Amino acid sequence: MFQSESEFVGWLQRFWRVRTPRLSLGIGDDAAMIRVTGGHELILTTDLSIEGVHFRRGLHPPRSVGHRALARGLSDIAAMGGTPRFVLVSLALSEKTPFEWVRSFYAGVRSLARLMRVTIIGGDTALVAGGSFTDIVVAGEAPAGRALRRTGTRPGDQVFVSGRLGLSALGLRLLKSRSATALSRSAAVRKHLYPIPRIELGKLLMSNGLASSLIDLSDGLSSDLARLCSTNAVGAALWAAKIPRPMKSRLTELTAPQPLDLALNGGEDYELLFTARPATLNRIPKQFRGLPLHHIGEITRSKGLSIVMPDGITHPLEIGGYDHFRK
Amino acid sequence: MFQSESEFVGWLQRFWRVRTPRLSLGIGDDAAMIRVTGGHELILTTDLSIEGVHFRRGLHPPRSVGHRALARGLSDIAAMGGTPRFVLVSLALSEKTPFEWVRSFYAGVRSLARLMRVTIIGGDTALVAGGSFTDIVVAGEAPAGRALRRTGTRPGDQVFVSGRLGLSALGLRLLKSRSATALSRSAAVRKHLYPIPRIELGKLLMSNGLASSLIDLSDGLSSDLARLCSTNAVGAALWAAKIPRPMKSRLTELTAPQPLDLALNGGEDYELLFTARPATLNRIPKQFRGLPLHHIGEITRSKGLSIVMPDGITHPLEIGGYDHFRK
Repeated sequence: MFQSESEFVGWLQRFWRVRTPRLSLGIGDDAAMIRVTGGHELILTTDLSIEGVHFRRGLHPPRSVGHRALARGLSDIAAMGGTPRFVLVSLALSEKTPFEWVRSFYAGVRSLARLMRVTIIGGDTALVAGGSFTDIVVAGEAPAGRALRRTGTRPGDQVFVSGRLGLSALGLRLLKSRSATALSRSAAVRKHLYPIPRIELGKLLMSNGLASSLIDLSDGLSSDLARLCSTNAVGAALWAAKIPRPMKSRLTELTAPQPLDLALNGGEDYELLFTARPATLNRIPKQFRGLPLHHIGEITRSKGLSIVMPDGITHPLEIGGYDHFRK
Repeated sequence: MFQSESEFVGWLQRFWRVRTPRLSLGIGDDAAMIRVTGGHELILTTDLSIEGVHFRRGLHPPRSVGHRALARGLSDIAAMGGTPRFVLVSLALSEKTPFEWVRSFYAGVRSLARLMRVTIIGGDTALVAGGSFTDIVVAGEAPAGRALRRTGTRPGDQVFVSGRLGLSALGLRLLKSRSATALSRSAAVRKHLYPIPRIELGKLLMSNGLASSLIDLSDGLSSDLARLCSTNAVGAALWAAKIPRPMKSRLTELTAPQPLDLALNGGEDYELLFTARPATLNRIPKQFRGLPLHHIGEITRSKGLSIVMPDGITHPLEIGGYDHFRK
């Protein structure tokens, strides 16, 4: 491992090789300095990723830990319809961490950063006695006054989600069951370890003006929809048959919950949930660059969430997603 | 403690009561959104404060933990000559933390934030099994191209520091010795628990163009000066007699190191160290708003640090400040 913090920072400077015209000052000074595009607002988000809470050494390879930590922050920018630009990575390392873990962690951050065209510009480092953790700051931007918020929806608005929900939770269960190495090639495991935030979809929704509100699905459909509804003092009714879920297969049979439960309560899919006025319904595309958009329900005046089952009977929807305070 | 993350975030929203015209969107959405003043650059910094590394439950009251965590970030902005504007506070709480600790922690952040006129706009929260920690992001700004960096000094430049060095390290020693409650009223203990970042001095140096480079003293004079010199591929000679240090007193006698050692190697003073061209020497004020500015040495062509003792003999200066990787 490194003998001093300067040695670590020197290694990081070489590792990132920062070159970008809009970055005025990068790693190695007291702070990072950037230029924001004229007429734009800055979007800032910070996300903790903690060993034992957000990742486990035995389950998550270091490359995935880095990838997922950055994906969480990028997804927050996607949830505003913003364009992510700059990233600060703070890493508190357990004293016994081998260098190879550190290198792979940063490689995971770097490969997603390159894919999403964001630049690492700074951070902080520390050695700790307990488990490792990281805090990732993402700075993005959106044209002034145009970013999409959680607020803005009203009764009658229609609810949409991107992608297939519950895959990440299924992937985590498969990883825990360790049933076969073949599983590690499954789409669900890939989705859990290397989720791709929906930046381009968020930007489309920001620019086409079709979404009345937008949130990303990090804790699970039921939790995040409840959060959106509570912010807007409305409720929502979902149509069970329309909710995209993991396909029934040998893989889903290995895991206890039904596919619908995974889709409703599984977290960390980092898909987007948005609402749209009924009048704009026919302008919402069925898919965007190969990513399906599903029309799964509507916003209601009566508060609380409900779900219409395939047999036509409506049930209250229990909130079953992840909450750090309710483990 | 809180029953859910939403309950915690709701409490935080009431606690901060954010109202500021330049904040487009604050706590409770996916990310925070701000406007940067036209013609300015954004300065971003992120700092970890970890139980057992940066603070100890037994020594640091929660109000001080919050204050110091924010002070670290603000001092990084001061070290660029920037004006801090917005703050994101992430807190990972040990499961057994009482609510009173949490309230006092945030009260410490809030009172320094008010004093420094910065607005808390977001953050993250988590519950952890081990010790608590926080990550604080500060966003500041400076007129484009004007912020002061660590780079820019050259041989012949003169070295200045603000304030009195070593007080924070002395304060920590006094706290550890628990020798008397009267000590808790000492200036050294106050400086350790509630340091005030030198924002106004940084802004003065940025605007008057007198500093050729600027860094804040967080790890200790010897470490931080070594860092500045290494960045600029120069060395420095300090004059021992000129270095401001804790006064000899009953308090300093309680602690093992000599006042000069405390001044050279004690960290967390959050004073500023700057260099200036010899030609501008007579334009550097002796003090700024009651804060003394000390002329303590000069930048040399030969690399490495040296110190001229009062007897006129020059010694190499050992680097003895704090390094997270060298405990």
